[in-house]
Amino acid sequence: MVDKQIKHVLKKRDRLLASAKTLGISVLVDEKNIPFADVGYAPFIRAEGCFYIYSSHLSSHIRALINGSEARFFLIEDEGKSTNIWARVRLKFSADVLELARDDKRFSSICSQIGQVHGPVMEMIRNFEDFHLFEIHPRHGTLVTGFAQAFSVNGPAFELTKHLRKS
Amino acid sequence: MVDKQIKHVLKKRDRLLASAKTLGISVLVDEKNIPFADVGYAPFIRAEGCFYIYSSHLSSHIRALINGSEARFFLIEDEGKSTNIWARVRLKFSADVLELARDDKRFSSICSQIGQVHGPVMEMIRNFEDFHLFEIHPRHGTLVTGFAQAFSVNGPAFELTKHLRKS
Repeated sequence: MVDKQIKHVLKKRDRLLASAKTLGISVLVDEKNIPFADVGYAPFIRAEGCFYIYSSHLSSHIRALINGSEARFFLIEDEGKSTNIWARVRLKFSADVLELARDDKRFSSICSQIGQVHGPVMEMIRNFEDFHLFEIHPRHGTLVTGFAQAFSVNGPAFELTKHLRKS
Repeated sequence: MVDKQIKHVLKKRDRLLASAKTLGISVLVDEKNIPFADVGYAPFIRAEGCFYIYSSHLSSHIRALINGSEARFFLIEDEGKSTNIWARVRLKFSADVLELARDDKRFSSICSQIGQVHGPVMEMIRNFEDFHLFEIHPRHGTLVTGFAQAFSVNGPAFELTKHLRKS
C-alpha cells in the first residue's frame, strides 16, 4: 500500500483508540464441561500502553479472567459512527493480564482515574468487594479498517506489521 | 419485581432488538491447538424470530461457524446510546445455526431483504463465493439492562423467564 493509504489506516486506528469507551473481552468459559466463547464489556482507561478495567466477578467473563482463562480483547467502532456497517473498524488483541490487589499501592490512584473518565458510578462501586482491577498489556492482534483492510498489529502502540489476506 | 419494572426491562429489550444493526458472534477457534474465544460482527435482519447474516469465510469466526463450532450470539447497545456506560444493555444467546446454500429457494429473497436494510454493499458482495448466508434460531440466553438487572430469556421472542443473580 502507498503511504497515503497507510496514513488513512493509522488515522482510523488512532480514532478508535481515542474514542472507544469500553473494552470487549472474549474468554473461554467451561460450564458443565461444555466450553463456549463468552463476551463481556468494561469501561477502560489506557495509560502508558496498558488498559485498565474495573469489573465484577458476578459476570462470567470476569470469573474466567480471574481463573486465568485464555482471553482476547477488542475495541469496535459504534454502529452509529460506522461509515460502512459491513466493515466496522475494529481491533482485536491478545494480552498479558494482571490483577491489581486492593492493597496494591496503585489501586486507589487508578480507580480515581477511571472515575474521572467514566463518571460517579465509580465512587459507588469502588468499595464493592466483587469488583476487580485488571492491568492489560497488549501483545499482538488484528486491526480491520474496511473490506480487504486487515492488518496484524504488535505491541502496546498497535504498530502495523503486515497486511493480511484473512483475519 | 413489580410490573412497572418488568415493563421497563421489556422496553429496553425491544429497543435493542429494533435498533441494533449488527449481530455479534462469539466462537471457539482452535489455531495451532490453542483454543481461544473469537468475536465477529455481521449486519443482520430478523424475520419470524430468526436472524439472517451474510458474511465472508475470510473471517475466522465465519470459518468456525461453517465448521459447526459452538457459537453464541449477542446484541449490544451502542456506547453513544448508553445511559450507563458501566451497564450497556445487551442480549446474549445460544442458537441453532443453519447455512442456506446458494441454490436454496429462499437465498435470493433473503439477500434482497438484507440489501434493503443495509444498503447497496449487498449488491456488490452478493455473488462473492466467499460469502455465506446463515439462518440463526435463538434458543436461550441472558438479557442485561442495568446493574443487578440480568434475566434469563427464552426462545425466538426472548421472553423473560428468570431474574438472575449472576450472568
